[in-house]
Amino acid sequence: MKKLINDPQNVAQDFLAGLALAHADILKVCQEPVYVVRSDAPVPGKVGIVSGGGSGHEPMHVGFVGKGMLDAACPGQIFTSPTPDQIEAATRAVNAGAGVLHIVKNYTGDIMNFEMAAELCQAEGIEVRAVVISDDVAVEDSLYTAGRRGVGTTVLAEKLCGAAAERGYDLARVETLGRKVNRNGRSMGMALTSCTVPAAGKPTFELGEHEMEMGIGIHGEPGRARMPLLPAGEMTARMAGAVIADLPFRSGDQVIAMVNGMGGTPLMELYLVYWELEQILRGLRIRVARQLVGNYITSLEMAGCSITLLKAEDEMLSLWDDPVLTPGLRWGI
Amino acid sequence: MKKLINDPQNVAQDFLAGLALAHADILKVCQEPVYVVRSDAPVPGKVGIVSGGGSGHEPMHVGFVGKGMLDAACPGQIFTSPTPDQIEAATRAVNAGAGVLHIVKNYTGDIMNFEMAAELCQAEGIEVRAVVISDDVAVEDSLYTAGRRGVGTTVLAEKLCGAAAERGYDLARVETLGRKVNRNGRSMGMALTSCTVPAAGKPTFELGEHEMEMGIGIHGEPGRARMPLLPAGEMTARMAGAVIADLPFRSGDQVIAMVNGMGGTPLMELYLVYWELEQILRGLRIRVARQLVGNYITSLEMAGCSITLLKAEDEMLSLWDDPVLTPGLRWGI
Repeated sequence: MKKLINDPQNVAQDFLAGLALAHADILKVCQEPVYVVRSDAPVPGKVGIVSGGGSGHEPMHVGFVGKGMLDAACPGQIFTSPTPDQIEAATRAVNAGAGVLHIVKNYTGDIMNFEMAAELCQAEGIEVRAVVISDDVAVEDSLYTAGRRGVGTTVLAEKLCGAAAERGYDLARVETLGRKVNRNGRSMGMALTSCTVPAAGKPTFELGEHEMEMGIGIHGEPGRARMPLLPAGEMTARMAGAVIADLPFRSGDQVIAMVNGMGGTPLMELYLVYWELEQILRGLRIRVARQLVGNYITSLEMAGCSITLLKAEDEMLSLWDDPVLTPGLRWGI
Repeated sequence: MKKLINDPQNVAQDFLAGLALAHADILKVCQEPVYVVRSDAPVPGKVGIVSGGGSGHEPMHVGFVGKGMLDAACPGQIFTSPTPDQIEAATRAVNAGAGVLHIVKNYTGDIMNFEMAAELCQAEGIEVRAVVISDDVAVEDSLYTAGRRGVGTTVLAEKLCGAAAERGYDLARVETLGRKVNRNGRSMGMALTSCTVPAAGKPTFELGEHEMEMGIGIHGEPGRARMPLLPAGEMTARMAGAVIADLPFRSGDQVIAMVNGMGGTPLMELYLVYWELEQILRGLRIRVARQLVGNYITSLEMAGCSITLLKAEDEMLSLWDDPVLTPGLRWGI
């Protein structure tokens, strides 16, 4: 295992210390229990937006804490759900009386712990709602999931709900928006290589010299098929095809499109995949209204990519364009 | 070789097509000869800023084209200098009568081709000046260089000179600033793994399972020493020590610090290195006034990182904070 780390057991914590130092103007890291929160939380009158999940997917979630996106994020150990007490503390910290929305990726442990935290908070008089993201078209149930896994659409939901809360939407309206984003968003991913969880010290899975895994999960869970490596054009066509057919996205739709790197893929390859994706969408008269190309929801140093499409009406595009100031996504401020 | 590509000979071109589609609001790609240019070039009255070099280091340089940074960038094939006709065409395209500054990394081929292009442009009546970046403290001469290689400080020079030109500094003043940035900036890098140039099809070099290369060049050129893998803290101390001792940076200095990923390193590890770096600097009473942590000057999918420190007086910090809108660096717009 070759990594830029100190103690393999403390990588997630050591990372947070660096994040806090580098972005002291945006966020702070609280301890016992651990969560990352906007420096200016709670923001008076604003609905709080909280997400979280296992570490190892950076910049998601802790790198999306800041004005216009998340008020707080709860990082678990690498690929491990955060505990209810982390989520409870974060929810309490961002509550300004207008209620708090939890954005939860659909993994059994995450769902359970966010629900437990929500009950604790509600008992304290904090109004909490949850939006569960389950956008991965690759597999129906999986290693860690009943139903579809939550992947790329989570990034878009965090941006859009964050913008809505910043504008002063009330809790019910932010929740409705979040549900709509999940309903309209679909994703699929693929991997060229495995990643290595530091505490495990060896690759999560093995892929042959000329193999790829289509439909990979963000923790290296098996996908749809292990197959010979395809050229980027064909690979993109298969992934986009599965995503488009699922909603389905239709001629005349406008979308926010994300080509996301898994952590170890150069930007050059991601833009090349983006080109292929936009050609396919143009051919179907689906208009890409906004796009995001880069590393947003990763799996440590895994090589590979995922594609996310979100059918977006004008309100979503307008929210998309609102300013955002986080370590991982930043514009207009 | 496992990459998300089509034809290994056309990766750099295919990438540009995707970049142009995804960022049509910021830049366009011109063909025959190839260069990337701000959509609104030439900007009346403004000094033009042009850079370039081999592809494979993205987002540098083409991903730094846009308001507040580069007016144009000339991408060569992967790890290959751009040709004089590319540089000449880009220079002509951004010239608005106020002259053009070339920012050139110190590699023999780049220097030669930028000089040739500058002569051609001057013969056409365009005033051209050049700033050569030679900030890598690892080795004195190298495989492709007489004198020190140009690495991370290039990113900072492009941001700062870009901001200065946007403010209306004249050519001589932007050039003076660029030289000062080079004089005050120092870098060093290291690698955990090699990268694979698509057209070559195999890794540029081999590193053992427990080895790292200290002082690596951005094309995989040999560094100072191949050595057993160190914990991140010790590794950072060695790199930072070499960088700090070279200028030298002293107690009371304020710096812009960059921890840069080589392309295949997770953000988590880069922030962990940043934490180590800031502890070292605090111990020496060197103040980090601004910082940048992420992938800015990469070597395809190489795993590893580099550290850059720039001694910055208040004018540089103020220029740093100016708005920038490029695919690779974006704030305030």
